[in-house]
Amino acid sequence: MLSVETVGYKLNHTMLRVKDPKASLKFYCEILGMELIEELAMTDFTLYFIGYNAVAEGASSEERRLHRRNREGVLELWHDHGTERNPSFEGYASGNEDPGRGFGHIAISVPDIQTCCARLESLGVPFKKRLTDGRMKNIAFCLDPDGYWIEVVPQVIT
Amino acid sequence: MLSVETVGYKLNHTMLRVKDPKASLKFYCEILGMELIEELAMTDFTLYFIGYNAVAEGASSEERRLHRRNREGVLELWHDHGTERNPSFEGYASGNEDPGRGFGHIAISVPDIQTCCARLESLGVPFKKRLTDGRMKNIAFCLDPDGYWIEVVPQVIT
Repeated sequence: MLSVETVGYKLNHTMLRVKDPKASLKFYCEILGMELIEELAMTDFTLYFIGYNAVAEGASSEERRLHRRNREGVLELWHDHGTERNPSFEGYASGNEDPGRGFGHIAISVPDIQTCCARLESLGVPFKKRLTDGRMKNIAFCLDPDGYWIEVVPQVIT
Repeated sequence: MLSVETVGYKLNHTMLRVKDPKASLKFYCEILGMELIEELAMTDFTLYFIGYNAVAEGASSEERRLHRRNREGVLELWHDHGTERNPSFEGYASGNEDPGRGFGHIAISVPDIQTCCARLESLGVPFKKRLTDGRMKNIAFCLDPDGYWIEVVPQVIT
């Protein structure tokens, strides 16, 4: 509901914990085409803020922070240091199985879903649901390196 | 990484399962100021796509769908019919406790975080972390009706 009190609010970001940031950044940036907006390294963990239409490469840290806070469509990847080389670390829940159901997925929308899915497939990205699976032939679900579900949605009406 | 293959991709939406859509829509729309973009009712479940800067009130269903697919910052609420009146339904996991850790939170960014948090408090919204709690004095976490964590982030650098 439009109200004076909430003018200017933005749905800014979604945070997902990741086991291995190298694998996650490769997936989200090299394969899905996002870019790093801001990286915040703490003692025990590091946060990676990524997204489409990111800041220019030479942007200052203040420009990156302002950009990151004043837009929508940001993905925050939270990495607890060491999980990537801890053999007893069991991984994170996708949110789609009990116990732990709640969060379902994030979605990217793309201009040409056939080309997108064919490319992801050729790059070895695992799928939960291909375009040809099930009844919904116009959406697909692939999996990120932690097993989170990534819906692929067409931008046009098919 | 900018590449020809991913031009036009958008981080479109995040999906959360909700127990009671009446409570969730009241929270996200009446309190946080989002608007309904598209509602898709199926036999067993209903999807509510909400966000800021939604379509005009009189928009057609096709306009709503195109708008919903061609932007960032959309929140999809998934409601399995009946959970809201099922006394044995145990609710959804927030993603922040074991078992089920993975997803962390969604975040809204706001022009004036002091005013925003004071208003949420006055409306009875529960907080996980107030501005005055802990070391990070410039962010807060409130809880949505299902217990999902909603970070409140200032748009300015404080």
